Amino acid sequence: MSMPVGYEKYLAFFTDALDKMCKEMRFSPDILTESMRYSLQSGGKRLRPVLFAAMLDACGCDYEREAAFAVALECVHAYSLVHDDLPAMDNDDFRRGKPSCHKRFGEAHAILAGDALLSYAFDLLLREAVRGEQYLRAAKILSEAAGAEGMISGQSYDISFTGKSLGKEELITVYKRKTGALIAAGLKMACAIAQKNEQIAAEYGENLGILFQLTDDFIDEYGESDEAGKTLGKDKRADKLTCIKVFGLERAEALADEYADKCRVALRGFDGDACFFDRLIDCVRDRTK
Amino acid sequence: MSMPVGYEKYLAFFTDALDKMCKEMRFSPDILTESMRYSLQSGGKRLRPVLFAAMLDACGCDYEREAAFAVALECVHAYSLVHDDLPAMDNDDFRRGKPSCHKRFGEAHAILAGDALLSYAFDLLLREAVRGEQYLRAAKILSEAAGAEGMISGQSYDISFTGKSLGKEELITVYKRKTGALIAAGLKMACAIAQKNEQIAAEYGENLGILFQLTDDFIDEYGESDEAGKTLGKDKRADKLTCIKVFGLERAEALADEYADKCRVALRGFDGDACFFDRLIDCVRDRTK
Repeated sequence: MSMPVGYEKYLAFFTDALDKMCKEMRFSPDILTESMRYSLQSGGKRLRPVLFAAMLDACGCDYEREAAFAVALECVHAYSLVHDDLPAMDNDDFRRGKPSCHKRFGEAHAILAGDALLSYAFDLLLREAVRGEQYLRAAKILSEAAGAEGMISGQSYDISFTGKSLGKEELITVYKRKTGALIAAGLKMACAIAQKNEQIAAEYGENLGILFQLTDDFIDEYGESDEAGKTLGKDKRADKLTCIKVFGLERAEALADEYADKCRVALRGFDGDACFFDRLIDCVRDRTK
Repeated sequence: MSMPVGYEKYLAFFTDALDKMCKEMRFSPDILTESMRYSLQSGGKRLRPVLFAAMLDACGCDYEREAAFAVALECVHAYSLVHDDLPAMDNDDFRRGKPSCHKRFGEAHAILAGDALLSYAFDLLLREAVRGEQYLRAAKILSEAAGAEGMISGQSYDISFTGKSLGKEELITVYKRKTGALIAAGLKMACAIAQKNEQIAAEYGENLGILFQLTDDFIDEYGESDEAGKTLGKDKRADKLTCIKVFGLERAEALADEYADKCRVALRGFDGDACFFDRLIDCVRDRTK
């Protein structure tokens, strides 16, 4: 997946911030800190904090001052992956080519690592909330997106729908909540901090999240290409809900195009430099090509 | 366990508040809301929110205005029980005589119900934090007590120590963090809201939490007596860490006496009517008698 100009800069900011935060973590016993760090420092595209930083940048704010929010956002994402990978959930033994948290630290500590990452995220949010009303608003955005109205609802639908025949609406509901909510949250948080209208960011983010999840399904089918176009390994889960299983390949591709368009439409009203966000749509759409 | 005068009043306040909050929960799919409500409305002594209300009362504050904090506190407790009961943790099929959350809703939904309860607690805290500095402080107290510095650390130690031979210090570390942190948090939150010194409440709460956990171990051994002195059923877990296994019965009883004394000593400096809190020490100490 080749990324738009600027991505590297935001990613470097985030990686630094995360490394600092991970070094400061000194929870006991050691296994608790280790399992949290392991789950946070497993690489990945860091799409959510990058989008958060990019939106702050586009709004003329200094994103380097908002490292705590960026880390909190990634903590929520990391916890959701740790719990998602558990045997009772998706039962994934690997995550980005490394043993998943429960394979490395045992199931009990994977449950606790997830719990601790979620708690740590809120700890960061509450520390930031003292800075003013817009920061409290940003904290609330993340809280709502992470909880039973957002991401957890999507995971619950995902489980409830397993093995059932789904329509388009149901699949989109899962993807919007499971992935769209947290991607939109990063963008909305940036707007809240910048005290700008959140609506366009919310719409773009939600649709980008759905697009991301749809193309994630293509990766399950084809594998992902790296920047040189080389096909990388793919994760496999036999009974995983994917858009290709639901619609067949052709309609799934059309659906991805539809959501790429929705992202573009949302961006039209954006008051600022939308170049990064526009280019990102193509990157996400074409990441298997 | 016969409770001090006043307990019923605080319990009634809390039960009402919880029922209202549970009715307002309308997360989808339905199983998500149901599993959250099931875990919250499973009865129990509600020690944490009762202590919170009692401390507000003792500080001259209207506890009925702080229902959201009381519910948030119980949500954190409920989530910890749901995750604790999971097969990978304590593997308890029953909780207070009813099937535990994962036996009723399946493991995947028990993981999600726990996650959702924790998120919901923080949602409530962030909503309250807007009311002023003392409320933000109360929110932070709960966040710290729930996370990797508090309760989760205790659970992690508990797992790490399983099957090892422990000394007194190690056992007390587990109990202080696993149980003491959240019981102390309720009392500290009340002091923060009342803008009173938190130190005495913290010390009393932590020691009461340890005492509670020690006498919990006696219940595992003997069963619990109800108000009429009748012995109730006991939960059994074969490899559960208990103070009786570590020290033998006599030293365990002496340890409970020691911590009851520590509670009494902490209360000496309390500026207000300490009657409820003083009486509660005996109730917790003697709940198997």
